[in-house]
Formats: sequence, structure tokens, C-alpha cells
Amino acid sequence: MEAPGIVFIGSGNVACHLARAFKDAGAKIVQVCSRTAANAESLAGSVGAIAITELSEVDTSADFCIICVGDSAVAGVAERLPHMDGIVLHTSGSVPMEVLKAASERVGVLYPLQTFSKGRALDVAKVPFFTEASEAEVLESVDSLASMVSCSVHHADSSTRPLLHVAGVLACNFPNYLLGCAADVLARGGYNLDVLRPLVQETIDKAFTSGADSAQTGPARRGDMHTIAMHASILPPMQAEIYNMLSRAIMQRHNIIVNEQNKL
Amino acid sequence: MEAPGIVFIGSGNVACHLARAFKDAGAKIVQVCSRTAANAESLAGSVGAIAITELSEVDTSADFCIICVGDSAVAGVAERLPHMDGIVLHTSGSVPMEVLKAASERVGVLYPLQTFSKGRALDVAKVPFFTEASEAEVLESVDSLASMVSCSVHHADSSTRPLLHVAGVLACNFPNYLLGCAADVLARGGYNLDVLRPLVQETIDKAFTSGADSAQTGPARRGDMHTIAMHASILPPMQAEIYNMLSRAIMQRHNIIVNEQNKL
Repeated sequence: MEAPGIVFIGSGNVACHLARAFKDAGAKIVQVCSRTAANAESLAGSVGAIAITELSEVDTSADFCIICVGDSAVAGVAERLPHMDGIVLHTSGSVPMEVLKAASERVGVLYPLQTFSKGRALDVAKVPFFTEASEAEVLESVDSLASMVSCSVHHADSSTRPLLHVAGVLACNFPNYLLGCAADVLARGGYNLDVLRPLVQETIDKAFTSGADSAQTGPARRGDMHTIAMHASILPPMQAEIYNMLSRAIMQRHNIIVNEQNKL
Repeated sequence: MEAPGIVFIGSGNVACHLARAFKDAGAKIVQVCSRTAANAESLAGSVGAIAITELSEVDTSADFCIICVGDSAVAGVAERLPHMDGIVLHTSGSVPMEVLKAASERVGVLYPLQTFSKGRALDVAKVPFFTEASEAEVLESVDSLASMVSCSVHHADSSTRPLLHVAGVLACNFPNYLLGCAADVLARGGYNLDVLRPLVQETIDKAFTSGADSAQTGPARRGDMHTIAMHASILPPMQAEIYNMLSRAIMQRHNIIVNEQNKL
């Protein structure tokens, strides 16, 4: 794709990471629009763009207008955008593409499956992007755009994007919560969560290399009811309930049979 | 510690990784004992040790005898070992040190908090080792031994080792199970688990860098009951129950208040 011109709406974490990645990949960042002038100017300055604070000032001739705002604000921005000649995209995993139709005939989604934080460097090339578009020709353009910054471009529509989101909650939000519980338990022994880092990293590496099912270990996988009961007794009530439920689920998944009297 | 002589009992994953690490660190691996001659010879050959198949053949003058066998076999090995002049250790997180008293006055535990697999290289220097010993002077020797191969040596006794084990289950076994569930969900959209790897890695890195609580994101953290209900409806019954329970737990941990009518 030959140096497309891109307008960014928003100046948050996603906008910052994407604008810089597209700039580095040779795109021209035309404008950065944010209600807060300082934020618009900060990002615009770092990618050689013009800072604007009003949607009415958006350059309607840009090839792409990428709306990088909170999920609940996307539809409102699309309604207030002037009608764009180019393609209007949002980057949300949970907002239907259709809300963009107010702003252009040619619309799509460019959803990066990653969590972006200010001040944390991230290799955008490895971030999987999930694209959708209002028509085949637009999809080609969106895929070309995504391919400028990422080696991992996939398609997702309103029926498959929720699957990605659920999977992300299961594989990231919940494990993060469990890490917090682990930190609590370790603190009771005077240990820092860091002592678990090599084990957590190796567990993740193994699961992605050989598959989570064959990598499963632990008391539940062995049907070790004695250890399961002992562990649950160590935990506060709600965490004990979670411990038992997840242990049951692992035993069910791996067809571990236990005596009636040992049931959780 | 000046080139201690070590006998290894066992030739499994833990014995292989530890024997090689100690050999590389300058220890003399005196013998490797395994009931299966081929296994004893294979490991002994790679660390310059003598292979033996009977506990009665163990060199009782070795500085350390490290029992690296399955948890349920440790006590039996200790009972059948000839009386050792040196220190007898086991490497299990769930076996009391006292079972070793049959084999020596000077006993201890050298518990590596890591999962070892055949054929997977592992940097033992980063593995946290948790030590315990029958007396202060022995503990010093065990700590010195552990420090030969690891930069992360800690103490744990029978009251704190279970905390490490519970934390490991919470932070590793359960997330591994949830990765399996995520893989199932992704497969329904035609996606491979690999699309989640960058997000999982970044989530883990963030949790260990800034703490799991401040790194928590997702529908439950936002109190987004609409998305939670939608996600639960996508999952099979037991996973939906887990999804709801973990969402409730996250909301409780972060004091997210929801309307009575929206309760899970």
C-alpha cells in the first residue's frame, strides 16, 4: 500500500501505539483529533500530524479515518464526523461495524487483539489484527493497511469477534485475577509473586507449544483429592469455591474418575 | 562450595535437569541410581557419573544424596537407603522432610519451583529453589548447594511449602485449563490458540511488573454485566458457571457494585 493518509480520532493508548506504528511503516498521519488539545498536540507532534480538537475539522479526503476511542463513544463519534470520502474504521472488539455507516459508505473494523498501555513498548508487528469491512474491495484495503504494521492479519465479523473476546477473558482476565489470589497466598508465607514468574512463564510456553490439554498438570489432573481438599482449606471461602470448581472442571475435561465419597 | 560430591537417586526430568546443572556448576556427580539400568546409564553417562541400579550400592561417603523420585516414592527410598554420612535431600514440594530421617541425621529439602520436561531446555539459574534442613548448619550447606545453580534461593518449611503449591495451582494449573477453554472457543471461529499468545504474554508481563490488581481489565473489572451475560451464553454450561463465578470474584475483589437486578 502506497503511503496512505490516515486521520486518527482519539489520543489514548491504542491511538498512540497504532499512529506510531503506521508512521514508522511509511503511512502519512494527516491529523490527530482529540477534545483535549494537549493530548492531540502531544501525539500529533510525535507522528508529524496536525492536531485538531473538533471532528468538524477532520480532513474528509484522507484515505482512512481510524476511530480509536472508548467502546461507548464510537457510535457518537461516527455520527458527528463529517462525511468521509475514504474508509472509516474503528478498533473495538465489541462495537458493530454498522455504527460507522453514518460517516461513510466504506467502513470497516481494524481490531488489534492486544492490551496497550502508556509507556510500555510493544512490538505491533506481532499483534494479531482482525479485520472486517462493508464490501470485498474495502476489506482488501483494510487488510493491506493492517499488513503494513502486522504480520498477523485475520478476518472477524460480528459473529466471530465475540469468540475472540470471550477467549481473551478466559485466557487473560481470569488468569490475571488468579495471579492476584496467588500473590495473596504467597504473601502469607512472606514470598513475593516474583518467585512464581519462571513457573508461570514455562507453563504458558508449554501450553502454546504442546497444547493446553497435554500440558495440564496439578492435583486435579492427577485426581489427588487429598491435596485438593488441603489446598481449599488454606484459601478464603470464595477462592476455595473457585479452587474446587476449577478442579472439578479439570477432572471432567480429563475424565478423571474419583470415588463417590471423595467428590468435591 | 568446593566441588561437592552428589549422588542422584532417580533419572526422571527433575534428576536430569538438576544433575546437569550441578555438573555444569562444578559439582562432582558421583552416582546416578535408577531401577532401570538404561536410564541410570543415560544420565550417568552425560554427567560423568557411575550408573547403579540398587540403593545398596550408593556411596555412603558422598556429600549429598538427592532423592529425585515421584512424591509417593520418596519415603520408601529413604527407608531402603544405606545410612549416609552426608546430607540426604528430596526435591518434592509436598513431602515432609522428616521422612528422610531414616537415611541420615542430616536431612533437608531442595524444592525447585518449576515444571521440568524432557527435551525442553530450561535456565536453572532462574529457577527459585526453596530449602529446608534439620538444623542450621545443614541449612547453610543446602543453601550453598542451591546457590551453585540458582540465583534465587529461599527458605520454606512444612508450613509455607503448601502455600507455594497452592499459589502454583492458582497461577499455573488453572490458567492452563482456561487456555484450553479459550482454545475451544477460538476453534469455533476457525482460529488457532496462537492468536492469543501476544495478549497472554503481555498480560503476564504486566501482572508481574505492575501487580495483578492494577493490571486487571475486562468486563468484570468494568462491571459490564451486559457483556458478561453475553459471554456466558456463548460457553458450554460448566464453563459458563466458571465464567460467572470468576466474574463475581473479580467484581468483589475490586468493589464493583452492580444493580440488584443485574446480579449474576
